[in-house]
Amino acid sequence: MNSTSSPLTSDHQAILINGKAHAATLRHRIREDVLAFHDRHGVTPGLAVILVGNDPASEVYVRNKAIQTHHAGMRSFMHMLPETTSETELLDLIERLNNDAAIHGILVQLPLPAGIDARRVTNAIQPEKDVDGLGEVNAGRLAMNLPGIVPCTPLGCLLLLRDQLGDMKGQHAVVIGCSNLVGKPLAMLLLAEGCTVSIAHIHTRDTAALARQADILVVATGCRELVRGDWIKPGATIIDVGITRAQTPDGKTRLVGDVAFDEAVQVAGRITPVPGGVGPMTIACLLENTLTAARMQVGETPS
Amino acid sequence: MNSTSSPLTSDHQAILINGKAHAATLRHRIREDVLAFHDRHGVTPGLAVILVGNDPASEVYVRNKAIQTHHAGMRSFMHMLPETTSETELLDLIERLNNDAAIHGILVQLPLPAGIDARRVTNAIQPEKDVDGLGEVNAGRLAMNLPGIVPCTPLGCLLLLRDQLGDMKGQHAVVIGCSNLVGKPLAMLLLAEGCTVSIAHIHTRDTAALARQADILVVATGCRELVRGDWIKPGATIIDVGITRAQTPDGKTRLVGDVAFDEAVQVAGRITPVPGGVGPMTIACLLENTLTAARMQVGETPS
Repeated sequence: MNSTSSPLTSDHQAILINGKAHAATLRHRIREDVLAFHDRHGVTPGLAVILVGNDPASEVYVRNKAIQTHHAGMRSFMHMLPETTSETELLDLIERLNNDAAIHGILVQLPLPAGIDARRVTNAIQPEKDVDGLGEVNAGRLAMNLPGIVPCTPLGCLLLLRDQLGDMKGQHAVVIGCSNLVGKPLAMLLLAEGCTVSIAHIHTRDTAALARQADILVVATGCRELVRGDWIKPGATIIDVGITRAQTPDGKTRLVGDVAFDEAVQVAGRITPVPGGVGPMTIACLLENTLTAARMQVGETPS
Repeated sequence: MNSTSSPLTSDHQAILINGKAHAATLRHRIREDVLAFHDRHGVTPGLAVILVGNDPASEVYVRNKAIQTHHAGMRSFMHMLPETTSETELLDLIERLNNDAAIHGILVQLPLPAGIDARRVTNAIQPEKDVDGLGEVNAGRLAMNLPGIVPCTPLGCLLLLRDQLGDMKGQHAVVIGCSNLVGKPLAMLLLAEGCTVSIAHIHTRDTAALARQADILVVATGCRELVRGDWIKPGATIIDVGITRAQTPDGKTRLVGDVAFDEAVQVAGRITPVPGGVGPMTIACLLENTLTAARMQVGETPS
């Protein structure tokens, strides 16, 4: 496939999937749901965010999470611990939060300082409070298509796709990248939607040929502009999870995704921009997960 | 693709993957490993099998499992409970076995009588003793490619493929069928081997076209003879997990798989017959899992 054989006109422009606007709508809906939840149960969902050490990027992330939680009408608790915190101290705190009825979600900001086993810490969070969905139990529930908590970024991608496409049954979804954080959980979600799912990665022999079969193409590799225009089936929906900072010829920098946007936009039917696509959905989905966690803890069936 | 365009000669015959012989070799190796394990730790692996009710097929299955466990030099414990057993009684038994140091593996034969929540029962088994690998924690570990216990049938398929093909990195594996018992766990195992993995199912639009791309084709649908000769790429390796009983024209019955064997054998490079392919590997993998469970419980790193 190339531009001359494409059935699309040369001035074709894909519909941009506005993640920023969608996230704003989602946050608004969550705020209303939080109020309704309080009316039903007399309970306000509470999220505890734990930061260990002084990584500057992590400090920004946890602050944003705390503020958005607060804005959504939930209770937000920050635990900012020194770099010297031991694994035992951290596990003790998690145990205390597991047993605290005012806390419905617990999030430990990664990465953790050397000497702390991130997997042991993540798995210590009670599955019903594991709002990042990164523990083994939630990964298992997702793999078996059982109710649980889904990691925020894949959930954000799914919500954008559902909003754009509605029923995805029978569509061929190709996921490039198979991380535990994005690629694999999203593949499980798309299977549950009834998609045929193909998963490509570093060892895949002809990723372009596989990508060209995709009705839905999700790219989460961290390789900037890996996916070119001629990897895309005309009309396909593209979700670009990647975000890296690149130098421009004039010495400045800009954020770019895993898809060569200027090429892709001429072929795809719909595409997420970078920035402003998947990114804004991630924190909104953390709020959604906190509400889901609170619902599970009062015995409501998760939606 | 049809027989005239095939690069294979008309008298081509695929290599038959002899699951029965492979399972016998595996059982022999496990028996030696059990003795070596006893020499190292003074411990004999023990498997508890629980049967509730009087389903005749289940009675045959658990008897075979118990006998093979015994033949492998392990301790075999049978708990045969009446149909009237309550969920609470069953959970109490599992709790007792969880705390019994002589028991390294616990298996609850499914299906369970109505009124008992199979998922709650399966998840009550301590993950390190969950030798069927069907609990949420083991499903999560598999999805995240962490050490754990893998369900027996997908493990059996993987061992046959490793034996036949060695390194599978970069091969395109197509899995038809996405059950929690076979299709999805096997997809995760093949991803961990470095395969590109596509998963097809009832909603897939052109399963034949996807199957024709497969270097490795796994079929686990329960639809007998679904996969025809012209669905198969010449030289591909075919794993047929299906097994159903079909009438023959002379009024007798025979066991058939999900692949039209007589057609496939002329195109494929290697193929599992039905019976005698995947089937015999399943109980052998239960023994392997019991040994793995015992290793995990004494603190050995699982292989």
